Amino acid sequence: MKFLEDLFTINSVSGDELTVSQFILNTIFQRCNHWKVTPNVFFGENFQDCILLKFGKPRTAVFAHMDTIGFMTRYDNQLITVGGPELVGGTYLVGQDSLGPIRCRLIVDEDMICHDFPRTIDRGTYLSFEQNLRIDDEFIQGAYLDNRLGVYNALEICEDLEDGWIVFTTYEEHGGGSMPFLLDFIMNESPVNQALVSDITWVTDGVVHGGGVAISIRDKFIPRRAYINKVLSLAKQSGIDYQLEVEDAGGSDGREIQFSRYPIDWCFIGAPEDNVHSPNEKVALFDLGCMVAMYRYLMAHL
Amino acid sequence: MKFLEDLFTINSVSGDELTVSQFILNTIFQRCNHWKVTPNVFFGENFQDCILLKFGKPRTAVFAHMDTIGFMTRYDNQLITVGGPELVGGTYLVGQDSLGPIRCRLIVDEDMICHDFPRTIDRGTYLSFEQNLRIDDEFIQGAYLDNRLGVYNALEICEDLEDGWIVFTTYEEHGGGSMPFLLDFIMNESPVNQALVSDITWVTDGVVHGGGVAISIRDKFIPRRAYINKVLSLAKQSGIDYQLEVEDAGGSDGREIQFSRYPIDWCFIGAPEDNVHSPNEKVALFDLGCMVAMYRYLMAHL
Amino acid sequence: MKFLEDLFTINSVSGDELTVSQFILNTIFQRCNHWKVTPNVFFGENFQDCILLKFGKPRTAVFAHMDTIGFMTRYDNQLITVGGPELVGGTYLVGQDSLGPIRCRLIVDEDMICHDFPRTIDRGTYLSFEQNLRIDDEFIQGAYLDNRLGVYNALEICEDLEDGWIVFTTYEEHGGGSMPFLLDFIMNESPVNQALVSDITWVTDGVVHGGGVAISIRDKFIPRRAYINKVLSLAKQSGIDYQLEVEDAGGSDGREIQFSRYPIDWCFIGAPEDNVHSPNEKVALFDLGCMVAMYRYLMAHL
Repeated sequence: MKFLEDLFTINSVSGDELTVSQFILNTIFQRCNHWKVTPNVFFGENFQDCILLKFGKPRTAVFAHMDTIGFMTRYDNQLITVGGPELVGGTYLVGQDSLGPIRCRLIVDEDMICHDFPRTIDRGTYLSFEQNLRIDDEFIQGAYLDNRLGVYNALEICEDLEDGWIVFTTYEEHGGGSMPFLLDFIMNESPVNQALVSDITWVTDGVVHGGGVAISIRDKFIPRRAYINKVLSLAKQSGIDYQLEVEDAGGSDGREIQFSRYPIDWCFIGAPEDNVHSPNEKVALFDLGCMVAMYRYLMAHL
Repeated sequence: MKFLEDLFTINSVSGDELTVSQFILNTIFQRCNHWKVTPNVFFGENFQDCILLKFGKPRTAVFAHMDTIGFMTRYDNQLITVGGPELVGGTYLVGQDSLGPIRCRLIVDEDMICHDFPRTIDRGTYLSFEQNLRIDDEFIQGAYLDNRLGVYNALEICEDLEDGWIVFTTYEEHGGGSMPFLLDFIMNESPVNQALVSDITWVTDGVVHGGGVAISIRDKFIPRRAYINKVLSLAKQSGIDYQLEVEDAGGSDGREIQFSRYPIDWCFIGAPEDNVHSPNEKVALFDLGCMVAMYRYLMAHL
Repeated sequence: MKFLEDLFTINSVSGDELTVSQFILNTIFQRCNHWKVTPNVFFGENFQDCILLKFGKPRTAVFAHMDTIGFMTRYDNQLITVGGPELVGGTYLVGQDSLGPIRCRLIVDEDMICHDFPRTIDRGTYLSFEQNLRIDDEFIQGAYLDNRLGVYNALEICEDLEDGWIVFTTYEEHGGGSMPFLLDFIMNESPVNQALVSDITWVTDGVVHGGGVAISIRDKFIPRRAYINKVLSLAKQSGIDYQLEVEDAGGSDGREIQFSRYPIDWCFIGAPEDNVHSPNEKVALFDLGCMVAMYRYLMAHL
């Protein structure tokens, strides 16, 4: 619980993932002695702020992005977006510049967004939704469930993982950019041709809270059907609740696998959330549980 | 004729190219003993559903995509598109799900497309235009001329090809994704710096039925002029009828060559069609003949 | 001065950079004996029309694109754009086709652009803004400052450069395409993990003529903050005038570094211009001086 609160409170808007990366790295070093298999850990200057864990002899790689959507100060009191945050006037934003900590409100005009902080904020300062994490018996709600829950899932399945890559990526919310060099490293070090994207998706008219983890047949991009069929066949065997997603919009780290220079199949699997990219993202704990269980099953059987 | 009918009847919407790939592979194995040069054939797990043929010592690679545009079922009776099919209400669509074969009609509403099949279709099921191939003395007409004719051309020129790569690709209609790993393989196995894209283009106010094969100076993307000039100079020498295309929209496998990590020049050369991405695509047989003749000439002289 | 006039008069619309590339190559061979360090020069068929200079043991690479925006003839008297030129009716355009030199005016209709040349121009002929270079005590003004000034900067800093890559790229104005193979070559020959993009940016409400060189914290894409902080800390130390840019639109060769398969950090640094992509682009000489000085400082200290 303390861990979740800490993880959810760190700001890490795309391009500024250093702090959350160090927090995840510390968590890995604290936990890895209790894991069934001790992984090789790759991080540092050659990986920008990304982290890779190699367990045993990987057949499949899991990717979880560490960054979140947010804002950046422009000139005067103007803001521009990073990724696609919901724009609701009055929302509290927090950050830090050379003069100290910042807490202000979002002002949404017709063709511009601004903040109401009484002084000028340094140009190019990152601002994030203020966190207000709420967990009850049924739901977890707050900012940045996308993709702190994907990161949480990736860390949970390390416990008994025998073979596989677990990779923490950057930039996903703003077009990507770390996946190509991460894939290169993986394919040189211990190649795979299967990937799972540990990320959070949307509640829609076909995907509901409490229906189990969503397995995505497609979003804006289309993974190869032969692989999806293999994943679905295992999902059926697993007995774990899941629901099928079919969308024509949205993207993930899977996009960069699709367009990479490697014939790696990919599939997005994640719990669905309501109030996407707002401070009130909401995920059913049951679906989150199914997500972790499904990843454990697939990583063992794929 | 039987071959053409079979080739045009196989459904292979982007992401689901396995069946057409196996059909093309069988054709290759049946025919290759009669070819002037027996190629090396590369296919299988490391190539997803793609196929590469290496003849002699390649200087140029030809790319023909095997996939087509189509539809996928979403929730209830909703459809979403794969690639950019023409949306004409009443058009017949066919497919197959866990309960059996499907034949239904496309319903086009203002902000949604649906089908009229009397039962629910499995989520994520691919549907394609029903084929109605018509060939007379002047024209070939039906669904999927784009890019079954490009595939046909690629297979025809194998007959007397001495040196070159012939490559059958996937995903072209939906953003691509196989080209990067195919180019990597080619550049490791037997590198080239010249490419031709065997695909079908549009009849426009500058490109007409019966004018010969279209050589594209540009579409949305712009190939390097030095290479286009070389191709045009040979086209002139060949005596084969061709027409120059200059567009600012549209893309092909050439896009992925342009943005690849290799300095490979590319040029799109293909017969023009009317009624693009509809069940009534129409190509003049004369232009198709010029296409095959031009590829033979260029592959020998480039 | 003669050199600047020559450099600014060469047409090199994206895809057609051969002539300007040869001019830059000649300049390099004329000047390089006077440079502090003699670089290795890489060019020719394997590099399309690009040029790379390797000085000493590079830690940082500078990229300057050689191409410009422009036009191409389509059918009849229609034009289509290359990159995003300003469309002002009556602007003079120049070019050359098989029948000789061309000088005509741009006609801007509601949904089409044309030229008024009295005869048909060959399909696919490149046209460029007619150059009218004006230099006074304060400003340089004309067509193609973007990116002839970036090229000028790159050549100037060669004088006393000890370690670094200087790279002249193609296609930047029309989506790119040479960066991936250039980065591959660099990373094989003498790898770096830092890059600077020598290009021209926009005068906006936060970036003004005479304020010094602009250092961009972001455009449409977002470089990694840890690197930007390093660059800004050195910029402060340098004592050279600079201004911070924060935009949510626009792109550069930096985009292709971001999405490349290498963990290379990048930062766009360039003088701001008014009347972007018009024949009257305008840059303050003071800002240009700051640009050259800042690159010298950063290349020595990064």
